[in-house]
Amino acid sequence: MRGPDELGALLAEHLDGLAFADELGPLDEALRYALEGGKRVRGVICLATAEAAGGAAEDALAAGAALELVHAFSLVHDDLPALDDDEVRRGRPSVWARYGEAVAILVGDALLAEGFRAALAYERADVARELAEATLGMIGGQYLDVTASAPDPATLHRLKTGALLGASVGVGVRVAGVPEAEQGPWRAFGGELGLLFQLVDDLLDGDGFVLTEGAEETRRLADEAAARARARLAEIPAPTAVLAGIVHSLAARTA
Amino acid sequence: MRGPDELGALLAEHLDGLAFADELGPLDEALRYALEGGKRVRGVICLATAEAAGGAAEDALAAGAALELVHAFSLVHDDLPALDDDEVRRGRPSVWARYGEAVAILVGDALLAEGFRAALAYERADVARELAEATLGMIGGQYLDVTASAPDPATLHRLKTGALLGASVGVGVRVAGVPEAEQGPWRAFGGELGLLFQLVDDLLDGDGFVLTEGAEETRRLADEAAARARARLAEIPAPTAVLAGIVHSLAARTA
Repeated sequence: MRGPDELGALLAEHLDGLAFADELGPLDEALRYALEGGKRVRGVICLATAEAAGGAAEDALAAGAALELVHAFSLVHDDLPALDDDEVRRGRPSVWARYGEAVAILVGDALLAEGFRAALAYERADVARELAEATLGMIGGQYLDVTASAPDPATLHRLKTGALLGASVGVGVRVAGVPEAEQGPWRAFGGELGLLFQLVDDLLDGDGFVLTEGAEETRRLADEAAARARARLAEIPAPTAVLAGIVHSLAARTA
Repeated sequence: MRGPDELGALLAEHLDGLAFADELGPLDEALRYALEGGKRVRGVICLATAEAAGGAAEDALAAGAALELVHAFSLVHDDLPALDDDEVRRGRPSVWARYGEAVAILVGDALLAEGFRAALAYERADVARELAEATLGMIGGQYLDVTASAPDPATLHRLKTGALLGASVGVGVRVAGVPEAEQGPWRAFGGELGLLFQLVDDLLDGDGFVLTEGAEETRRLADEAAARARARLAEIPAPTAVLAGIVHSLAARTA
């Protein structure tokens, strides 16, 4: 059973080696720029889930890459002037600030299409299908965010961040061949993980839940989500120590 | 064997009845706005190909819808201020002119993801896989267009328009179950169809090939592409009269 750092290195190597469509030409470089850096939380969760569920992390690499490609797509488009207007991402110029707005729109589009292409490396269509549904949830969340029309922060985050984090666990168990009927506790775990991730994100950024609930209450909600995530893991008859470690580091992260 | 009008009506009904992801919320209306109107050339070619190749047009509806969703995605993003800056599409405000730039970016993203979801209605993954490859070709073509870096108009159009038109024939034969080894002449036909479509488009708009080759030469090239498309069809031992009719109307179209 490999830890998050080892799985992260495995995934980074796989992402570096990905061959994008020849037809993208010079866009290739901009896609790789968009993929650089970051913690690759979604891909690592997918690999760790696949291993915990009795599969091989290697078999989950295409799914993990697909999640990271779709996540990168969402960041590139979210940073655009018409949306969040962020010129900086991960301490460097965001894609539009570096390559211009037109190219950034196309880079996001290409990352999304490459994400599906990666998910379609499997003979089975269910990994790509789950990715499509999660992507649509994420886009719905981004719409609520951009139009400031979310009924509450929980709904916003369940879609904007939770959908893809939940799918990271979901595609991991699919790749490992866990039957649909036994996926319930895994998926419940994924839901708590998504909520935990967002609560801590808001604590670090001082926005979202912190604005409506206050910092102290948000910390309490995060600790509760972490406790529920651990409880869900405890229900699963599988070696989930690595996933429990990920819960711990997500709850304690400071960046 | 049904003609293009009948197949177009069948596809329009299917598109009207498509249920988009609940999570898209109010974006649903904007997606439907983006899908309205247009000739649905790609979807109709897909349905007609499936019927000609011995399949049922009904079985090709999901693939036809997927092609139209991806085509609509490309129009919504192409019209954006940072790209072609078109305020009018099909005689009405373009999506960004009507809903704003931020929403238009998300509408395009959602159309692309819904396109993959539609293509993933099949148990088999190959329809979605071909769609992903064609989409990446199209994005590569759009990059050449936006950056004015195409080596020649033929390369630009082979990607920007040809990739998805070719895939319309490609997914049609896949749905009909034509073995890979027998798809060659069909795909060669699809290639000529894509070129023909673009040559006539340039004649109507007075751009692209018309700027480099002149109107008379472009007309001649279009007639040659139509002749080659008919010749490819003649090589196929299947009832291709409806497809021949589509070649005729594409060659003769005035809008």
